[in-house]
Amino acid sequence: MARIGIFDSGVGGLTVQRAILDALPGADTLYLGDTARVPYGTKSADTVTQYSLRNARFLTAQGIDLLVVACNTASAVALPALRAALQVPVIGVVEPGARAAVAASRTGRIGVIGTPGTVGSGAYQAAIQALRPGAVVTARACPLFVPLAEEGWTDPADEIVRGVARRYLAPLAGEGIDTLVLGCTHYPLLKAAIAAALPGVILVDSAETVAAEVKGRLDVPPGRAAEHRFYVTDAPERFLAVAGRFLGRPVERAAHVDV
Amino acid sequence: MARIGIFDSGVGGLTVQRAILDALPGADTLYLGDTARVPYGTKSADTVTQYSLRNARFLTAQGIDLLVVACNTASAVALPALRAALQVPVIGVVEPGARAAVAASRTGRIGVIGTPGTVGSGAYQAAIQALRPGAVVTARACPLFVPLAEEGWTDPADEIVRGVARRYLAPLAGEGIDTLVLGCTHYPLLKAAIAAALPGVILVDSAETVAAEVKGRLDVPPGRAAEHRFYVTDAPERFLAVAGRFLGRPVERAAHVDV
Repeated sequence: MARIGIFDSGVGGLTVQRAILDALPGADTLYLGDTARVPYGTKSADTVTQYSLRNARFLTAQGIDLLVVACNTASAVALPALRAALQVPVIGVVEPGARAAVAASRTGRIGVIGTPGTVGSGAYQAAIQALRPGAVVTARACPLFVPLAEEGWTDPADEIVRGVARRYLAPLAGEGIDTLVLGCTHYPLLKAAIAAALPGVILVDSAETVAAEVKGRLDVPPGRAAEHRFYVTDAPERFLAVAGRFLGRPVERAAHVDV
Repeated sequence: MARIGIFDSGVGGLTVQRAILDALPGADTLYLGDTARVPYGTKSADTVTQYSLRNARFLTAQGIDLLVVACNTASAVALPALRAALQVPVIGVVEPGARAAVAASRTGRIGVIGTPGTVGSGAYQAAIQALRPGAVVTARACPLFVPLAEEGWTDPADEIVRGVARRYLAPLAGEGIDTLVLGCTHYPLLKAAIAAALPGVILVDSAETVAAEVKGRLDVPPGRAAEHRFYVTDAPERFLAVAGRFLGRPVERAAHVDV
């Protein structure tokens, strides 16, 4: 039996959990969404690190074999502190995303979009250049993408969605990138609009690479009935209202916890 | 001497502080921006109340004569808990905003825009109807307005700004409102775009009504040199980068505190 702890600032990390459940259907999971403190992307590295440590301690206290940091901002700034503080392996989304981008890119001109915290940390830029030293990385924060995704304004034919995507992505098109990392778990919901603004560019979502890495680290017997528990730090209602859409299967219960 | 404590979830409450400083130039102020937990507008009433109590306790521990809750969401959901817990008078922004709207409206058809938390609480709707029982109040949450204001995308000629304002405000125009309450301290930055989407409608910003109420409660000798201190719960850099624009005068220092 293996039990995986996963945390995110909110609901977006369920897109990562979805890929993990597809890869490892027999694993138990504990998901913690820090919905009382969401978003992390506009906050300082120190504050995000402090919240990440609290989330991780809550999950390790329940007994987990491995921790997945499904939040890009927390992965970008808090991994060293988490690895120093915890006994279990810690997997973030930045390094797998960088690896997938380097594998996909032919020209080595790679774009990264994310929250101000993720982009400002330089973590994707550093991870990509460590894997491919000649890579030219152009990064851009897209703060309106998260509220657009949460409003459900994601149709690429919508003039507001198209206008926002073009304004953020035109500078990346101008750099001639051939690959773009979606460095925020909300952005896959805007994939069609992002693709329309950057025709021909390969879009990389790190969820599947993360799931493959988790699978490589754990020995999970197939076919057992797995148990999945969900925790949130704000009232569960709003989380439950959208969680199913992000996870791709029903989420019926989430417990409110203080961490 | 009088010392006024003011808190908000972030930087927006400085627009309220600005009106207070204009009305009471001799008063000392302590401003707390809960930038580590911003925004409040998408969180549950319980969580916002808990954060508001912590903010208030921090300010009262420094010694204040009066507390201004400059955040619309906190004013909408946490005032009863704050008044029960504190010894000093507590003034929120909802009741003064409702009073200003009722005074301004000829037809009694009044619109309210704010965060999901403020609108969902029904606090403006209740306060307006208590003052004018026949009023017809139409409320609408506008989640994209805050990130637009923070991006500096506020020009009414900008097609994205115009598109978002029209989408949110068209239903209010359809209701035939003659007065609109800007029920979030970020919204005055979008005043021109909101006015363009609702021609002829009176826009009410509660900051000045709040300042008048504070002035009526405190005896402040004019002409003394006042002291203003700023506290934030996240790193001060981002707050300091925009605070001057919201306050209308320079903000040079802000202390990082845990509350």
